[in-house]
Amino acid sequence: MNSYIKIIEKPKLRKPVMVVGLPGVGNVGRVAAGYMVAELRMKKMAELYSPHFLHLVVVEEGDTIRLLRCDFYYIKGKKSDIVVLTGDTQSVTTEGHYEFCESVLEYAKKLGVKDIITIGGFSDGKAPQEPRVIGAADSKATKKKYEKHKIDFGKDHPIGTIVGASGMLAGMAERYGMSGLVLMGETMGMPFVMDPKAADRTLHSLIRILGISLDLGKLENTVKELEDRLKKTEEIHKNLLKDVTKSKDDVRYIG
Amino acid sequence: MNSYIKIIEKPKLRKPVMVVGLPGVGNVGRVAAGYMVAELRMKKMAELYSPHFLHLVVVEEGDTIRLLRCDFYYIKGKKSDIVVLTGDTQSVTTEGHYEFCESVLEYAKKLGVKDIITIGGFSDGKAPQEPRVIGAADSKATKKKYEKHKIDFGKDHPIGTIVGASGMLAGMAERYGMSGLVLMGETMGMPFVMDPKAADRTLHSLIRILGISLDLGKLENTVKELEDRLKKTEEIHKNLLKDVTKSKDDVRYIG
Amino acid sequence: MNSYIKIIEKPKLRKPVMVVGLPGVGNVGRVAAGYMVAELRMKKMAELYSPHFLHLVVVEEGDTIRLLRCDFYYIKGKKSDIVVLTGDTQSVTTEGHYEFCESVLEYAKKLGVKDIITIGGFSDGKAPQEPRVIGAADSKATKKKYEKHKIDFGKDHPIGTIVGASGMLAGMAERYGMSGLVLMGETMGMPFVMDPKAADRTLHSLIRILGISLDLGKLENTVKELEDRLKKTEEIHKNLLKDVTKSKDDVRYIG
Amino acid sequence: MNSYIKIIEKPKLRKPVMVVGLPGVGNVGRVAAGYMVAELRMKKMAELYSPHFLHLVVVEEGDTIRLLRCDFYYIKGKKSDIVVLTGDTQSVTTEGHYEFCESVLEYAKKLGVKDIITIGGFSDGKAPQEPRVIGAADSKATKKKYEKHKIDFGKDHPIGTIVGASGMLAGMAERYGMSGLVLMGETMGMPFVMDPKAADRTLHSLIRILGISLDLGKLENTVKELEDRLKKTEEIHKNLLKDVTKSKDDVRYIG
Repeated sequence: MNSYIKIIEKPKLRKPVMVVGLPGVGNVGRVAAGYMVAELRMKKMAELYSPHFLHLVVVEEGDTIRLLRCDFYYIKGKKSDIVVLTGDTQSVTTEGHYEFCESVLEYAKKLGVKDIITIGGFSDGKAPQEPRVIGAADSKATKKKYEKHKIDFGKDHPIGTIVGASGMLAGMAERYGMSGLVLMGETMGMPFVMDPKAADRTLHSLIRILGISLDLGKLENTVKELEDRLKKTEEIHKNLLKDVTKSKDDVRYIG
Repeated sequence: MNSYIKIIEKPKLRKPVMVVGLPGVGNVGRVAAGYMVAELRMKKMAELYSPHFLHLVVVEEGDTIRLLRCDFYYIKGKKSDIVVLTGDTQSVTTEGHYEFCESVLEYAKKLGVKDIITIGGFSDGKAPQEPRVIGAADSKATKKKYEKHKIDFGKDHPIGTIVGASGMLAGMAERYGMSGLVLMGETMGMPFVMDPKAADRTLHSLIRILGISLDLGKLENTVKELEDRLKKTEEIHKNLLKDVTKSKDDVRYIG
Repeated sequence: MNSYIKIIEKPKLRKPVMVVGLPGVGNVGRVAAGYMVAELRMKKMAELYSPHFLHLVVVEEGDTIRLLRCDFYYIKGKKSDIVVLTGDTQSVTTEGHYEFCESVLEYAKKLGVKDIITIGGFSDGKAPQEPRVIGAADSKATKKKYEKHKIDFGKDHPIGTIVGASGMLAGMAERYGMSGLVLMGETMGMPFVMDPKAADRTLHSLIRILGISLDLGKLENTVKELEDRLKKTEEIHKNLLKDVTKSKDDVRYIG
Repeated sequence: MNSYIKIIEKPKLRKPVMVVGLPGVGNVGRVAAGYMVAELRMKKMAELYSPHFLHLVVVEEGDTIRLLRCDFYYIKGKKSDIVVLTGDTQSVTTEGHYEFCESVLEYAKKLGVKDIITIGGFSDGKAPQEPRVIGAADSKATKKKYEKHKIDFGKDHPIGTIVGASGMLAGMAERYGMSGLVLMGETMGMPFVMDPKAADRTLHSLIRILGISLDLGKLENTVKELEDRLKKTEEIHKNLLKDVTKSKDDVRYIG
């Protein structure tokens, strides 16, 4: 039962950086990645379908259906080429999460990706006064590489474990010859409310890392436009995530 | 763990249309497909068994047992040949739904099927005054193709997602070189009560699409005869569907 | 993830009949099969281990451990050779039940088995006044074959579905070129209490079918001796079966 | 979906004994194995990653992430070489437990391992007055082999079944040409509180068996140092174990 990647275009990319933003706490990653794709007018290169996604189709515009999926986009840049992975959902089962990550990383390897940066949100249940963006790397070497971009590898945060694809993709990157970084935007206390401000803050960090110019002025407006589309699967994700978290008191971050 | 298709007959079919009616909300699809098979005296061509169906056998006539299964029937027509898939059940697990759909579509491809039409029911929890039949297509091109048959691709309905094989078979059709259409009959408020009138309405739409003649006068009687047989697995499906829906507030349609 | 059959002996058997008695309602099948093995001094020929059995070992005699397993025994007879399958448990998952049955039937086919008879219990929640033994066959032809042995293929019983390996093995037998019969002994109202009398009654039917002589006088004593050993996994099975049945009101038989 | 073993070093070992200590009741096995690795300064030779472990990464030192994993360590000894397997977690699903054990045993076979000793804890819900270390062997021959080391193969203990990898690895050892022993330290009544004293007692038994010298004086201090690291996944294990045990009244030991 393997995920299936439908190739749409095969662009020539020079050691692209791969940015991942999937649904999760505050939808931070999904919103940040979605905004990048829209604002940079990135082109879709592939779609990933998986037997580990929920067994349903989404009805769009009231008349068209499609399976849940994740999409790969690309853009050629001055400093480096960028691939973005974003999408509707994460896997449903434990084993499914591993298979999904392996499928993504195998494809990324074929594209020549050397560095993966995943974006997520975290919350300790309280409204933060000065919300942070915290980084976690797959090795001290990776950490060193990103410290120069002023990423906060803070020690006094409450994150003990990172559940889901954001953490796992970064954690499995090394096996595929890549480095992995997780960028986590602190969100408001309510764990399932969309938080565009946290997306904004992680995008600021990402802009520094990627050396790209990206106008963040339209973010809140874009989020409002996206909200309707996001809402459809939102409820599903909330329930999926609740299932994962309900019995685990100390898991505060889901990416 | 793959589904197993037992071939009974290998008729020569010219680009047949495949109609799918499986258990679901109001049993709309199953009743409609079952009536078509009985009234058109379609011939059985194959049986599908799956490790993703519940681990039980049904006792028939008090003395004979059989595994849960789905059946393929066919009839040669003037305008086009027709294949009908109907059966006892849907898959139990998320992954099982994907495997089932892939098995069905691979077989359909071998038969030369180019168009799949799945039938289901939907309910928004209220008794509708003028119950509708709503279509959802796998692409705007497919939508165009069916609009001429007066299918209502209404925008102001509450269907955000379609859970189960009806939606997925239509949504996955394109990968197998086919078009996919879902026909959903609006049912009464009570989600698990069989609704022959909704089946009747979807069959009216289907008659127009397929260009066949089908006497719908005996539908209610046939349903009464079927009811006893359906009841046996009814309870099981109710529970299966409850499991899928219980934690998902906004999922209103199950096909 | 396939079941693993450890071969202990390869006896030459002439079209043996295979009798299956696994844990279930009233432990009817397990007790009947266990008594046959003990009383006829059948020889063990193979052990089946499965990744679909619970992930635990049983501690025997306080000092030795072993995985959960099922055992195949044989005896050469005048009329026909007999193979008995009995064991600790059934599978945990839906898919596991199918894989287990396929593994058993593939092995049975290699042994030249042509007929499978599975033994189980059923209960409609009340204490029966004249408890019955009811048969269910995988076809009318199989039914005919066993009617001459005075099996009651009664129509007025409450069994709508048979959950688990007993029903499935009989239901899948035809695919492997065998016939399948389920013999169900009616048990007391309390669904999880061991019922040696129901085992006794099904053994009476089995004696007629197999044309063997088997002294049933020691059954109750043997059950008492077995009880301690059975108790260990009993609790586990109760819980497994509860999980399967708790949400299915009309499923009255589990074999 | 197979576990993946990353080889770090390929030492030449002479028929090494393999000691296994994974998370479980009182964390007895994990603490004992962890202390052995630290105190004997054993070298890491391999890491095992599995799709059957929870889908999360652990954040270490606040800035680095890694997947859940188990580690193999080795040391060359006078009497015999020793391999220790310890780690963060056990599998999540029933099937996953079997796959994990098969992966471990296949690797152990390649290393030439002939004897496996797994360490765990057990509790009957009361605080024991004179806590015991009880052995359970995979055969009477294995029992005999260890009796000379004063292992208590007591008959009057409450252990009916052993859930998880400790029992299963020992129970499956024979299939891979090895002997299997489970050493269980009795712990305090509270099932999920770490119990270094039980670890101490099992280590005393292990020292006799392996013929090694190991200073146990620092155990309690080391445990305190380990506690912080253990705490991170502790909560997860508690919940995993609760799931397995909650519906099984008579299962008292989890290894």
